[in-house]
Amino acid sequence: MTTELSSTTLDDLLDRARKDYEALAGRGLSLDLTRGKPAPAQLDLSDDLLSLPGGRRSAADGTDVRNYGGLQGLAELREIFSGVLQVPVAQLLAAGNSSLELMHDCLVHALLSRVPGADSRWVDQERIAFLCPVPGYDRHFALCERFGIDMIPVPMTGSGPDMDVVERLVAEDASVKGIWCVPKYSNPDGTCYSDETVARLAAMGTAAPDFRVFWDNAYAAHHLTDEQVEIADLLAACEAAGNPDRVFVFGSTSKITLAGAGVAFFGASAANVQWLLGNNAKRSIGPDKVNQLRHVLFLRDADGVRAHMERQRALLQPKFEAVQRILEAELGGTGLATWTHPKGGYFVSLEVADGCAKEVVRRAAGAGIVLTPAGATHPYGDDPRDALIRIAPSYPTLEELEQAILGLTACVRLVGYEQRSTEA
Amino acid sequence: MTTELSSTTLDDLLDRARKDYEALAGRGLSLDLTRGKPAPAQLDLSDDLLSLPGGRRSAADGTDVRNYGGLQGLAELREIFSGVLQVPVAQLLAAGNSSLELMHDCLVHALLSRVPGADSRWVDQERIAFLCPVPGYDRHFALCERFGIDMIPVPMTGSGPDMDVVERLVAEDASVKGIWCVPKYSNPDGTCYSDETVARLAAMGTAAPDFRVFWDNAYAAHHLTDEQVEIADLLAACEAAGNPDRVFVFGSTSKITLAGAGVAFFGASAANVQWLLGNNAKRSIGPDKVNQLRHVLFLRDADGVRAHMERQRALLQPKFEAVQRILEAELGGTGLATWTHPKGGYFVSLEVADGCAKEVVRRAAGAGIVLTPAGATHPYGDDPRDALIRIAPSYPTLEELEQAILGLTACVRLVGYEQRSTEA
Repeated sequence: MTTELSSTTLDDLLDRARKDYEALAGRGLSLDLTRGKPAPAQLDLSDDLLSLPGGRRSAADGTDVRNYGGLQGLAELREIFSGVLQVPVAQLLAAGNSSLELMHDCLVHALLSRVPGADSRWVDQERIAFLCPVPGYDRHFALCERFGIDMIPVPMTGSGPDMDVVERLVAEDASVKGIWCVPKYSNPDGTCYSDETVARLAAMGTAAPDFRVFWDNAYAAHHLTDEQVEIADLLAACEAAGNPDRVFVFGSTSKITLAGAGVAFFGASAANVQWLLGNNAKRSIGPDKVNQLRHVLFLRDADGVRAHMERQRALLQPKFEAVQRILEAELGGTGLATWTHPKGGYFVSLEVADGCAKEVVRRAAGAGIVLTPAGATHPYGDDPRDALIRIAPSYPTLEELEQAILGLTACVRLVGYEQRSTEA
Repeated sequence: MTTELSSTTLDDLLDRARKDYEALAGRGLSLDLTRGKPAPAQLDLSDDLLSLPGGRRSAADGTDVRNYGGLQGLAELREIFSGVLQVPVAQLLAAGNSSLELMHDCLVHALLSRVPGADSRWVDQERIAFLCPVPGYDRHFALCERFGIDMIPVPMTGSGPDMDVVERLVAEDASVKGIWCVPKYSNPDGTCYSDETVARLAAMGTAAPDFRVFWDNAYAAHHLTDEQVEIADLLAACEAAGNPDRVFVFGSTSKITLAGAGVAFFGASAANVQWLLGNNAKRSIGPDKVNQLRHVLFLRDADGVRAHMERQRALLQPKFEAVQRILEAELGGTGLATWTHPKGGYFVSLEVADGCAKEVVRRAAGAGIVLTPAGATHPYGDDPRDALIRIAPSYPTLEELEQAILGLTACVRLVGYEQRSTEA
C-alpha cells in the first residue's frame, strides 16, 4: 500500500471517488452484507425437509422419535456426520438447531461444574482467559465477554494461529483455559489450519490441566473450489499425544440444510462426552429427534452430504467469484486494499489502510450498504489497526451483491484517497 | 390406616397377598410406570406435524422461517398459547423443544448474570435456596442439586403450598431466591392452586429483592374431566401487587403435540423477557421457527388446542379411571393406602403406610413392574416418611396399565400386611 502518486493524480482520484460515492448514495440502495446467512435459493435446496419425515416415526433402532429420550441423538445421523467432523460415532452427539448453543453450554458447564481434568469450577477461579486468534468470529468473542472470560488476541497466519505465541501463552499461564478455532475456511479469513498447526495444538504443554480447544468446524463441508481442503484430525492427534480430553469439536447443518432448523453436533473424548451428557441430562429430556430423522431421510449418507454441498457450491461460487472480480477491477493496483481468496466457507476479508475500516463501513451505511461493524472480527470489537472489513457474500442475490461490492469499493476509494490526501 | 384386624384375619390376608405376589412374579411382566410419557396413540394425534409445513416457508409477517433470526419466536404461535398460559403475546417467548431447558437456562443466567432486581449474581452469593413444595417434580429438584441450590421442602395442601410456611420463609431469609410451582394439576398430586394461594404468592413480602416464582404451568390444558379447572393469573397478580418481575412462567407442547419435538414457552414481565432475550442472544441465532410454523399450521388457534386436548383426554381418561377402579377394588377399605383423584395432568399419587414406599417399589420391580423410585417426589430423593409412590398411567396400553396397577396393589398388600404382621 505504498504506491506513490503525484498530488495531481491523487486529486483526480479523490475527485472521481467523491463523484462515484455521491452517485452511489443517490441510488437509494438497501443492501445487507452483515451476516453469513444462506440465501433463500440455498434454503430451497432442502425443501424436501419441509414435508419429512412423512409417515416415518421410528429411528433405525426402533426408537419412537416423537417421544422423550435419546440424549445422544440418533446414531444414524451421527454416522452420516462422523467422517466430515472427524469424530467416531460413539463420541459424537447430535443435538438441537445451533452449535453456538453447544459452545455456550460447554462454557456454562465448565463454569459451574468441573470439566474432566479440572481442579475446580472455572467460576471459582480468579481469572479465566481464552486465546482468540484474530481476525475471528464475533459470536465466540461475545460468549467470552458475556461470561467475563478475558480474551487474549493471537495473530492468525496463513496456516492457523501463530503457534509460537499460542505455545508460549498456554505454557506460562494456567488461567488460559481455552482457544477458539475455526480450523477450516476460517471466519473471516478462509484460512485452513496446516497439519503442523493441528499437531502442535494437540501436543503442546499447557499450564492448565483443563485446557480446551473449542474446535468450531463450522465449514467442514463448505468447499468453493474443486480443491476440497482436508485438515488433520485434531481429536485423534490429541489422543495420540496423550491429551485425549483437550478438544471439544462443534459442527452443524445450519449452513448445509436450514440455517434455523438444522442439527448441531458435539464431539470429544469419551470422558468429555460423558461430562456433557451428564450435564445435559439435567437440562433436557432429549433433542428434537424428529428433526434428526428428517435430516437422515433427506441426506441419507456422507455421499448425500457431499452431493448436497456441491449444489450449495453451485449457488455460492458465482457470488464469491463476483466479489473477487469486482474487488480486482476496482481496487487492484490501487494499493488501497488487499483481500482474501477463500477456497471455502462464507466470508471474504477485506483489509484497507490502517485507520480506515470504520470510516469505510460508515460511508457504506450512508449509501445503504450495511456491513458487519468494523472491529467485529476482534475481541471487544476492537481492531487496533482499524483495517479489517468482513464481507458476507451469501445472502444477497448475485445482482444485489455486485451492486453492494461495487458500492463498497467506491467507499474504499473515497476513504483511502481522503486519508492519503490528508497525509500528503 | 388404623383398621383393626384380628391376628387370624391378618395372617389370612398376608397369606393371600404372598400367594398373589408369587403368582404375579411368575408372570414375567415387563411394565413401566416410571415417567409421564405420552403413549404412541397420543402422539399419533399429531401425525399431521410429520409432513408440515409442506410448501409453507413464511411466517405471518413474511419472515423466512428457514433462516436464522427471530429470537422471540413466531408471534402467531405465541398468540395461540397466550391465553392458556396467561401471558400477553408481547411478553411470551416461543423457544425450543423443552421447557425444562428454559428453566435450566433461567437458573444459569441468574447464577451468571444479575436478574432484574438482583444486587449480585446468584453465583456470587454465599447461599442460594429454593422452596420446594412436596411432593413435587424430581427434575426441578435435580436442577437445584446440580447447581448447589439448597432445597427447603414446604408441605403441599389441597390448594397449593402451605402459604403460611412460604410467607414466613421468604420474609425472613434473603437467600431464598425462588420457589418451584406446578400450579395446575400438579406433579404428582394433581393439586390446583387456589385463587388465594396465587394472590398470596404475588403479594407476599420477600427478603430477597430478586425472588422468583418458577411457575411451571406444564398441564395448563391437560384436563381429564368436564370441569376444566382455571387458575388465577399469577403474572397479572404480581403486576397488580407491585411485584411485576416476580414470576417466570413456563409451558410447552410436549404433552400436547410431540413429547420430543414440541415447542416450549417462557413468559414474564417485560424486564424479565428482555433479560432472557439478551442472554439468549449470546447463545443462539434463534429457535427452530420451522417447527413453530408447523405447530401454527397444525393447531391453528386456541380453539384448535382445546379440540386437540379433548382428543388427548379421550385417550387418557379411561386409563386414569382404570387406575381409580383397580385401586378402589383392591385397596379400598383395607386402610393400606390412600390416593389422589386428579382432574387433570399426568399422575396419581399413591400414599402407603410410613416406611413402606421403597419396599413396595422394590417388590414391584421384582415382579417386572418398574415404578418411579420412591422418594423421587422429594428433594434429594428423600421422602422422610417413605410413604409416597407416583403412578404415571399414560404410557402403557390400557391392558398393560391394568396389569401393572393390579400387580402394584398386590405389592402394597404384601408390604402393608407384612409391616402390620411385624408390628403385631
